[in-house]
Amino acid sequence: MNYCSNCGAPVRLRIPPGDTLPRHVCDNCHLIHYQNPKMVVGCIPRWEDRILLCRRAINPRYGFWTLPAGFMENGETTAEGAMREALEEAHARVAIDELYALFNLPHLNQVYLIFRAQLLDLDIMPGSESLEVDLFAEPDIPWQNLAFATVRESLRLYFDDRRRGQYRLHVGDIAPPTGLGRARPMTGQVGARSGEPHR
Amino acid sequence: MNYCSNCGAPVRLRIPPGDTLPRHVCDNCHLIHYQNPKMVVGCIPRWEDRILLCRRAINPRYGFWTLPAGFMENGETTAEGAMREALEEAHARVAIDELYALFNLPHLNQVYLIFRAQLLDLDIMPGSESLEVDLFAEPDIPWQNLAFATVRESLRLYFDDRRRGQYRLHVGDIAPPTGLGRARPMTGQVGARSGEPHR
Repeated sequence: MNYCSNCGAPVRLRIPPGDTLPRHVCDNCHLIHYQNPKMVVGCIPRWEDRILLCRRAINPRYGFWTLPAGFMENGETTAEGAMREALEEAHARVAIDELYALFNLPHLNQVYLIFRAQLLDLDIMPGSESLEVDLFAEPDIPWQNLAFATVRESLRLYFDDRRRGQYRLHVGDIAPPTGLGRARPMTGQVGARSGEPHR
Repeated sequence: MNYCSNCGAPVRLRIPPGDTLPRHVCDNCHLIHYQNPKMVVGCIPRWEDRILLCRRAINPRYGFWTLPAGFMENGETTAEGAMREALEEAHARVAIDELYALFNLPHLNQVYLIFRAQLLDLDIMPGSESLEVDLFAEPDIPWQNLAFATVRESLRLYFDDRRRGQYRLHVGDIAPPTGLGRARPMTGQVGARSGEPHR
């Protein structure tokens, strides 16, 4: 950020009075431009024992498989965002069930919110951001070709819970791809294992 | 948003190719400036049967009581943000337990994430954003002087669950203060009642 989005004057990075962190501050119109983490909302769409995945037609991770998910938009709820993403990426109509996983990715300033969902019909086809869409039973999941650690963790936890016969909320942190970070599972709630890098 | 924060040229609001929503687009450096919802992270800090509340020294809702909560910062996890807010607003050191409530406020482009937490000691005092801080047993909660619907809902659900002897995740939507919106509880998860306006 170099210029004030309100008045166009140059901004400076400094700690405003009463604050503790550096912010982009405009010395002309005095606006403080805060930058905050973004939410990525998505779902695990189920049809009988199979899960809908989309093969990405965009970077990052072009050609790799993902759960339908994307940045939450202004004016929608988290569940509405997850529904919208399924529609956009796979023309999939889903009924959103419970919140299933929250992943913190502090190195990317992102929080993933993944819901369980039911696919309402099989009229699915790739949206503009997908090369193909398909349904996978657990043995057929392309584990080596999944796009993101969040997708891998969501699916791994999901199939584990399904075997146990009980789904529950999972909250965890996902480390940066450098391997410098470590998983920091939260007290009292099942943390995500994050041995594999997220990109 | 009037000017590009990257190059300072005027921006225009239009739908970029391949997109579905209007964005602030710079015709000079071609950056698209996305705007997304923000997360508010907070906690319900417990000491024995009492809950820590803070009386706000800032607007909005100056003088009203709130749970410690605020905008999540870049580079932190949701739990870290909730801990930081307790420290900033009440000098309170807390251990974060489970995620307890997620409230969508689509009219404000906000998502609240409220954790249960344990106050670690009684060395609490008002931070710069608080007039006073205090511990309240259920009968003493200042229900008529709570700052936000999210605080009211969090406390109401919390005490209900405590009576039942089981805490569980609550997910719900909170309607705008005009009363035009309605509560939209989610399928499969306990929705927040939102009969009272949020400000």
